Amino acid sequence: MKQFTSVNDVEDIKELVEAALALKKSPYAHQELGKNKTLGLVFLNPSLRTRLSTQKAALNLGMNVMVMNMDKEGWALETRDGVVMNGTTVEHIREAAAVMGQYCDVLGLRSFPKLVNREEDYNEEFFNKFISFCGVPVVSLESATRHPLQSLADLVTIKETWKGSKKPKVVLAWAPHIKALPQAVPNSFSEWMCQAQEEGILDFTIVQPVGYELSTDFTSGANISHNIDEALADADYIYVKNWSSYKQYGKVLPFPEGWMITNERLKVTNDAKVMHCLPVRRDLELSSEVLDGPNSLVIQEAGNRLWAAQAVLKAVLETL
Amino acid sequence: MKQFTSVNDVEDIKELVEAALALKKSPYAHQELGKNKTLGLVFLNPSLRTRLSTQKAALNLGMNVMVMNMDKEGWALETRDGVVMNGTTVEHIREAAAVMGQYCDVLGLRSFPKLVNREEDYNEEFFNKFISFCGVPVVSLESATRHPLQSLADLVTIKETWKGSKKPKVVLAWAPHIKALPQAVPNSFSEWMCQAQEEGILDFTIVQPVGYELSTDFTSGANISHNIDEALADADYIYVKNWSSYKQYGKVLPFPEGWMITNERLKVTNDAKVMHCLPVRRDLELSSEVLDGPNSLVIQEAGNRLWAAQAVLKAVLETL
Amino acid sequence: MKQFTSVNDVEDIKELVEAALALKKSPYAHQELGKNKTLGLVFLNPSLRTRLSTQKAALNLGMNVMVMNMDKEGWALETRDGVVMNGTTVEHIREAAAVMGQYCDVLGLRSFPKLVNREEDYNEEFFNKFISFCGVPVVSLESATRHPLQSLADLVTIKETWKGSKKPKVVLAWAPHIKALPQAVPNSFSEWMCQAQEEGILDFTIVQPVGYELSTDFTSGANISHNIDEALADADYIYVKNWSSYKQYGKVLPFPEGWMITNERLKVTNDAKVMHCLPVRRDLELSSEVLDGPNSLVIQEAGNRLWAAQAVLKAVLETL
Repeated sequence: MKQFTSVNDVEDIKELVEAALALKKSPYAHQELGKNKTLGLVFLNPSLRTRLSTQKAALNLGMNVMVMNMDKEGWALETRDGVVMNGTTVEHIREAAAVMGQYCDVLGLRSFPKLVNREEDYNEEFFNKFISFCGVPVVSLESATRHPLQSLADLVTIKETWKGSKKPKVVLAWAPHIKALPQAVPNSFSEWMCQAQEEGILDFTIVQPVGYELSTDFTSGANISHNIDEALADADYIYVKNWSSYKQYGKVLPFPEGWMITNERLKVTNDAKVMHCLPVRRDLELSSEVLDGPNSLVIQEAGNRLWAAQAVLKAVLETL
Repeated sequence: MKQFTSVNDVEDIKELVEAALALKKSPYAHQELGKNKTLGLVFLNPSLRTRLSTQKAALNLGMNVMVMNMDKEGWALETRDGVVMNGTTVEHIREAAAVMGQYCDVLGLRSFPKLVNREEDYNEEFFNKFISFCGVPVVSLESATRHPLQSLADLVTIKETWKGSKKPKVVLAWAPHIKALPQAVPNSFSEWMCQAQEEGILDFTIVQPVGYELSTDFTSGANISHNIDEALADADYIYVKNWSSYKQYGKVLPFPEGWMITNERLKVTNDAKVMHCLPVRRDLELSSEVLDGPNSLVIQEAGNRLWAAQAVLKAVLETL
Repeated sequence: MKQFTSVNDVEDIKELVEAALALKKSPYAHQELGKNKTLGLVFLNPSLRTRLSTQKAALNLGMNVMVMNMDKEGWALETRDGVVMNGTTVEHIREAAAVMGQYCDVLGLRSFPKLVNREEDYNEEFFNKFISFCGVPVVSLESATRHPLQSLADLVTIKETWKGSKKPKVVLAWAPHIKALPQAVPNSFSEWMCQAQEEGILDFTIVQPVGYELSTDFTSGANISHNIDEALADADYIYVKNWSSYKQYGKVLPFPEGWMITNERLKVTNDAKVMHCLPVRRDLELSSEVLDGPNSLVIQEAGNRLWAAQAVLKAVLETL
């Protein structure tokens, strides 16, 4: 794999999921692969799970890791061409990315959307320019519109826990929040689940209040609903996540009461497992009783971030 | 050792001190023990000595280390149960601690007191919840009320330098400061010295101005004094440290002039060695002439932080 | 090499350049040298290239690396003796440096000038005190007046790229900027080029507007010019860099129009290669057309920071 920025970079998602589960059984089996290889992790935004899990994944593979918190340790980067840089930006992405590529064999990059201008965010200008200028493989640690390491970990978790004989019903359920959050996690989850549905792995439904529909670029083939009662019926997995509006870009819109998943809501499901990418605001996004109960997979899911990252880094290392 | 948060977690302090001194002689003798084991260092407050010494200790043991500065890189954590998280906290300690436990084999944690509400600080709610939720051994990097890695290094330093035939007289002497500092270091030092006194290793005295008495939970068996002239007589070691009042919690109270240790003050001692955990404000807490003179152990003491941390991590690794 | 703070610490610059180029061919040939040795990187100011390249250099040599961002993670340090520390400084450099020396075998240090008081900056008080108190070899990661790792990488780049039969003409050309920048990079570059000129490696010219002359302590033997047209004639290398005035210390003075290097300006040169230490403000310091054209060496030059740092660390490790 030469880069990992979306499900489209993956040749065979089943194979990648199997690779992650194999690494979970034998974490240190490939330490020669990463010997003398350096992973640079570039964060333009804060990170807990992604940083720790990716760093650990690289160490498991024998790599060295250098972390760069650009928001604090670094510089404001210019992305536009043809401007005289006499303002606040101190370095152009052309130089900054190319230089990091000189010191690292693989780069991980995190850059959130600003949620102001939809076209600008969905362009992924920063991400794409960084990739084209750095000269080494890039692994997304979450971009403006996608978080593929999270989605791979989610699929690994479903694969690992599903013991039924039929295809599981997976529901992505919008959840309340007080802040305007990016669509990166739900976009990416939807994109991966649509691909998994196409490959006959599962059935996929998205449910959200009116106005919160995701871009159709990420939801091809998904069953789209606005009725949470209907959507959750017979669900095997509920993937809980807030996001701000795509249509009224970056806005927090009014929504019907009672969207939060509780034990009561689980009754209509097939004893559904509940997932969330974390961090989660308890009793706002998701009820404590569910998080602390037997249906929650959130910690196991977070743990699988490690094996997802390790499978991706292994696939990248194999092409170096 | 399954956790290291106070002297009570240590089965045999003499043995642990000997282990530290043995590691000082053979720092790299146990690198197989830490192979493929990861130490996560979680700082909710800044750190210099503790971070570097613990990181180096882990590297000496062959471990990987991941540092997490939560005050800057991370999140405001919620510790209360049953609250709707629609305020400033973005993640609950239940999830945050559990997730870190997924990526690390051992966790180190630093969390200072707020010095506002005594009961809240002395509850050690944050620390205890973190330990119970993370699922892996935890080493204290200083909590609201204790700093056991410092105290162990202090005991190692006394053991290493004492050449007399009788038991040394160790005096913990309060020192002036302009800020309200926690009681963690003196609480912990006192607790360790009381234990050492009980085991016949040394005699222990605490001297402080009226109003600065520590909680009796940490001083059982210590000789308590308010007269610095008397307390220092024939002392072999003076452990200099400021702390704010425990009784008038977190307050800086008036104190008699002349509390600072100077060469003049050393005259009544048995040529006492002078210790301080650092950082030290020169000529406010402790005179420059003492710090720069032959009686000061402060740099050697700081150096021993490494071997204390390595002995603790080794003991923890042996239980994994 | 017992320290690396200026060209004067280097016995033989040709040999050091050759060592860097040899390491570029065999990066991992000396991993036993750094085994169980720890490099501490202490930053009082932000760093991208220097941090990553030095960290990678140490890893290539088998060392462990601990990074300390003192501006954010640490403390305000006192450097003066004989002051009662009852103000904003929380630790004296005497203790802070000595303690870091306890945990690290080699220390790297970055500390920028304040550009307020020339004598204070050019004293290098902080740097010199740190070196004298820490007790281990120190590698400069840029001080108030010098950046020798950059200069060594620059000389390596010239040596690596020069294919002519005569000595190349190297021109250090002042460039416009909107901020007051230190003289550390040009001082250091000049000092190294003057030494290289003395050894018959190259011819060296400095060109700057009136008022921007560097301290003669760093320019001995250089051809000094104020006329950019004349200075660039037949140049083989142009080293572009802004700096603030040394004479009117730290000031940004008026300068003649047309100082920026463009393709048009390159016409009078011997198809000169263009260098810059980065970060560079495009179309303010240096034109985009040059940076993106075939004459630019800036990325290769940044890449060579790694081999320069590795050659220096190797030479230091050989003396431990």
